[in-house]
Amino acid sequence: MIHSLDIILAKRDGHELTTEQIQHLVRTVVLYGEQQLATQRGEMPQPLAPNDRITEAQLGSLLMAIFQRGLTLRETADLTTAMRYSGETFDTQPLHTFSVDKHSTGGVGDKTSLLIAPIVAAAGLEGTPSISVPMISGRSLGHTGGTLDKLETIPSFNTQLSLPQMMQVLRDCHAVLVGQTPRLVPADRILYAMRDHTGTVESPYLICASIMSKKLAEDLNGLVLDVKVGSGAFMPTYEASKYLAELMVSTGEHSGTRTAALLTSMNEPLGRFSGNWVEVWECVDILQGRRHPMSADLITLSNALSGWMLYLAGKSASPEAGAQLADKLLRSGAAYKSWLQLVAAHGGDTSVFTDPVAFHRPTATCVLKARRDGYLVSMDCKQVGWAVQRLGAGRAKPGDAVSVHAGLESHAKIGDRLTAGQPIFTLYSEDESLLNEPYAMLEDTLAIEPHAPKLEPLIREVITSC
Amino acid sequence: MIHSLDIILAKRDGHELTTEQIQHLVRTVVLYGEQQLATQRGEMPQPLAPNDRITEAQLGSLLMAIFQRGLTLRETADLTTAMRYSGETFDTQPLHTFSVDKHSTGGVGDKTSLLIAPIVAAAGLEGTPSISVPMISGRSLGHTGGTLDKLETIPSFNTQLSLPQMMQVLRDCHAVLVGQTPRLVPADRILYAMRDHTGTVESPYLICASIMSKKLAEDLNGLVLDVKVGSGAFMPTYEASKYLAELMVSTGEHSGTRTAALLTSMNEPLGRFSGNWVEVWECVDILQGRRHPMSADLITLSNALSGWMLYLAGKSASPEAGAQLADKLLRSGAAYKSWLQLVAAHGGDTSVFTDPVAFHRPTATCVLKARRDGYLVSMDCKQVGWAVQRLGAGRAKPGDAVSVHAGLESHAKIGDRLTAGQPIFTLYSEDESLLNEPYAMLEDTLAIEPHAPKLEPLIREVITSC
Repeated sequence: MIHSLDIILAKRDGHELTTEQIQHLVRTVVLYGEQQLATQRGEMPQPLAPNDRITEAQLGSLLMAIFQRGLTLRETADLTTAMRYSGETFDTQPLHTFSVDKHSTGGVGDKTSLLIAPIVAAAGLEGTPSISVPMISGRSLGHTGGTLDKLETIPSFNTQLSLPQMMQVLRDCHAVLVGQTPRLVPADRILYAMRDHTGTVESPYLICASIMSKKLAEDLNGLVLDVKVGSGAFMPTYEASKYLAELMVSTGEHSGTRTAALLTSMNEPLGRFSGNWVEVWECVDILQGRRHPMSADLITLSNALSGWMLYLAGKSASPEAGAQLADKLLRSGAAYKSWLQLVAAHGGDTSVFTDPVAFHRPTATCVLKARRDGYLVSMDCKQVGWAVQRLGAGRAKPGDAVSVHAGLESHAKIGDRLTAGQPIFTLYSEDESLLNEPYAMLEDTLAIEPHAPKLEPLIREVITSC
Repeated sequence: MIHSLDIILAKRDGHELTTEQIQHLVRTVVLYGEQQLATQRGEMPQPLAPNDRITEAQLGSLLMAIFQRGLTLRETADLTTAMRYSGETFDTQPLHTFSVDKHSTGGVGDKTSLLIAPIVAAAGLEGTPSISVPMISGRSLGHTGGTLDKLETIPSFNTQLSLPQMMQVLRDCHAVLVGQTPRLVPADRILYAMRDHTGTVESPYLICASIMSKKLAEDLNGLVLDVKVGSGAFMPTYEASKYLAELMVSTGEHSGTRTAALLTSMNEPLGRFSGNWVEVWECVDILQGRRHPMSADLITLSNALSGWMLYLAGKSASPEAGAQLADKLLRSGAAYKSWLQLVAAHGGDTSVFTDPVAFHRPTATCVLKARRDGYLVSMDCKQVGWAVQRLGAGRAKPGDAVSVHAGLESHAKIGDRLTAGQPIFTLYSEDESLLNEPYAMLEDTLAIEPHAPKLEPLIREVITSC
């Protein structure tokens, strides 16, 4: 007989929890969540047996005990697995493909998913093995953007598909771009909401279990993780990001999913645009063969991540050869063809891609220019992300609406030589009154110095299990 | 503006909380408790301002953070003070007496309160300064007994007095023996219930704040703490008991209450009887001048604790002289006179003291005898406490009824030379079927060996602030 209190006492005192204790915990979390939902619907929840019960206070206490004492690799893997199977899961076996996905820990202007999904889908169309990309994405929150908000700027694009609909799109297009459903990994939704207000968000073990349970519920053969480092990253230090990457790679491999993590720089917005439609526009430009100089880092990173996915899938002999294949698929128009098919399958109106500039209709705009001559040496990228959010592109709390046309255009990258008066950012908003604060925030965070900074590589390190 | 989440984050990361943060915490705990009570009464609770709100999950998380990170002496004193003033408090100033109390961390057969209250009250009647003993006691729980359950075996004895009634008894008798009211230190009631099911009971900081907030709410000039050590003690090690004693002494002195702590042995039941009425009977015997050999340790400890109280009150030049005065008051019958007055003031029927043996009416009894010749070298005193509880004298959960007549009589003490067949314990119960399990538990825990054990002194150490 396993009791919630015994689990708390064990973790409180630094002991390793058993697999059965962790399974019990996740089971009680799901039951707790069902009771909460019933109460919210105004129903009388079914009384639970004492042994099936975990109280809100016990959840808070246990999360803090895990925060303080940590989890072993085995416990982290067990928690991830138990959460993964806490609700519905994908079943990609009937597709007879290599299923592979990419996950990013979140950044500013980070739109690689919009390129990677069509690139890898295009590669999956031809030859053996066939590949499918069952991509579940999130919404923007805090200083980071969200793929779903970007996609939903495409008229009629539907990110909320049922499980059978998802499987159909995946079968037809070799990729699907959807949001999490309430029935997928319910334990994570409940625990995440708890962590948010109990001060237990920043535990690498809980972050790993949260990310990996959702990704592994996609029933993946391969997974590539883009773990951000730098001033715009969620984790505070390089070491913390690396530790999280190692935990996630170990957890993925433990579940039989080939997993690699790239530690990549997030010290400035990735690519040319940060926002919602502007990011789709930038990707459509690339897919249509136009390569703006400001998009160079985005293309490099998308190709590198795609390359690792293609390598894991056995489509290329090395990650580098995979990146070359990805670039070829971009340049040939094969990825654009997959993109159009994918958008159409989601009900999206592809006619907007004919003239993406014309679809961009901010009602207020202003330009931030260099105050003096010098090199752009640094910015606080998190602060830049918050400026984008304040322009209307992000949300202050879950459920808030986001602006389609708000966003930021970068005219310079760190290391560029600037002349006084040269534009650095153009700010776009749908509300004139929303320009001032982000302008001041951006101006505050830019450092222009007489000497060129030392530049960091875009891809800092790759973590694999071997 | 203080937010509950910021308090959690600060303690999570090992920072010292400010006085304002601790006051805010206790305020939100009380508001949380009021909301819970309203909901239990079927009322719609008043919505709280976001800043006045702490969720159950946040309380669980914060308690675990405190458990893991600890509190400084300053934080412990601040928490104690904020809890002390979270509801009604006594005001002993109008009595113009030295108010002094004793608190024990709980033991088996620990009935010193029943002797100390009349001894110190008797001393308080005569000369300057006058003394009052505003004693708030608890009920039995787990393996330890509770003074209220013992007192309530006296027919019509009322432990539930209103604040004005308490003050009247205190004025008339120089002592009062009551239970906690819902309005006294409500923050402790709420936090204690939380700690119980979130695995955060055994934090010395939270134990100190819980005990001391209730004791200091009695508005004391002096406080003597009986901190148990040994196999029947609540704290697991001598060091843990000593640390708690030091914390409590420091916290009491910080609030201007002269505080001393005695670390005393709890390796076997104190005195002759453990139970409810049997413990009153034992005390009445002593108060009436009969000293059973098995009661020797009880008398020594009661005199020592009373001696410290009399010394703090300025009634004696030293604690040792105070203990001699206490013994004199016992032998002279002055303490018995105070006892009769005190019981009568609580509405109790003092006629039962004429023949306390006659009032003892267990319906089932059996004797546990020595299996072989040898010395009684040890027992697990906690196990003995649980046996007393299983006989019916204690309760399995709060609110359960306790048996008046169940209990245990000790016929031997650790160190005694036994002959095979010699009685060690007599078990009393009101239910024949309740004898077997406690008998087996007791038999299991006794160790009889050929060589005499090294005996520990009853009073191991005294902790004072100077």
